[in-house]
Amino acid sequence: MPRVSQDHLDARRRQILDGARSCFARFGYEGATVRRLEEATGLSRGAIFHHFRDKETLFLALAEDDARRMADVVAEQGLVQVMRNLLAERADTVGEHPAEWLGTRLEVSRRLRTDPDFRARWAERSEQLTAATRARLERQRDAGKLRDDVDVTVLTAFLELVLEGLVSHLAMGLPADDLDVVLDLVEESVRRHRRAGAVLD
Amino acid sequence: MPRVSQDHLDARRRQILDGARSCFARFGYEGATVRRLEEATGLSRGAIFHHFRDKETLFLALAEDDARRMADVVAEQGLVQVMRNLLAERADTVGEHPAEWLGTRLEVSRRLRTDPDFRARWAERSEQLTAATRARLERQRDAGKLRDDVDVTVLTAFLELVLEGLVSHLAMGLPADDLDVVLDLVEESVRRHRRAGAVLD
Repeated sequence: MPRVSQDHLDARRRQILDGARSCFARFGYEGATVRRLEEATGLSRGAIFHHFRDKETLFLALAEDDARRMADVVAEQGLVQVMRNLLAERADTVGEHPAEWLGTRLEVSRRLRTDPDFRARWAERSEQLTAATRARLERQRDAGKLRDDVDVTVLTAFLELVLEGLVSHLAMGLPADDLDVVLDLVEESVRRHRRAGAVLD
Repeated sequence: MPRVSQDHLDARRRQILDGARSCFARFGYEGATVRRLEEATGLSRGAIFHHFRDKETLFLALAEDDARRMADVVAEQGLVQVMRNLLAERADTVGEHPAEWLGTRLEVSRRLRTDPDFRARWAERSEQLTAATRARLERQRDAGKLRDDVDVTVLTAFLELVLEGLVSHLAMGLPADDLDVVLDLVEESVRRHRRAGAVLD
């Protein structure tokens, strides 16, 4: 048997993650049966579980992958931009399944509620997003763009709370047309206060 | 057989709703089996389904009941106060099952995602809370307490988004100690802007 190159392994791993992501988004964690995972990835169960020990490990790898991508966007553009992207993705997929990223995140939320072991495994991973958000806000504060009368910890928690709300809102399929303006308000709420009269700028 | 009084019927209905609420909160919609509903209410399935056609109808009655109570608090004290109450309830139940109101609401969220028929039936009911929030904000604006540079529709959507986030956050069992201060920030964000220097008040 020829030795399998690292590139090949990475590509195969990516193929599994991409297929599994849409499968979990569509059917939920419990609904993503091994048969459905096979169909979605185009690979046999043997191949899938060669790369990921079990379904739980596969799901956590996905969630971790998404959290890392999100943290990258946060570091560059801030958490409000992550939310704007989420709204834009939704606009692209109206009437279809929710954005795949959203699907994974919803499953994370659901399992956090119902599964204490999962909650423990997830805790370290979600810390990443908080840290990225916090670091970005601190840079903004140093640049004089952030309000300085409220602690960065509080501003971070505020933005994360709004993100949770947005995820939940989109997941429920509620109308989201007004939400861009709401995000303007959110953004303004963490910015440095306007000088008196700045309202007329 | 003696005729059953309206009072008796109301009390029985209330007994079913109260038992069912804790049952749904604890086991979720699917997990709340007829047997468990019997245990939680102390009544037979015959008695339960004499008052409510089926489990779906019972669940909707519960959700409607909660929405009405919430709308009452909103009308009196505003949506931020509803959120503060939610935080306080949580503090009372740490380590136990989530507050029962929260449990029902979570089940509503979950079913909205997965069940289009339920979504349609729920739409009218959730309108109640939006209307109460909006009416309260309009009164606040007339009293000069609300910022007037952002439309009331946007402020309403903002508060509802934060509520969704809070529900989701609490449901996931995440730490909530900082959230009272976050709600201060939320409240301040919809209030009339401070005059320059008011920060020193």
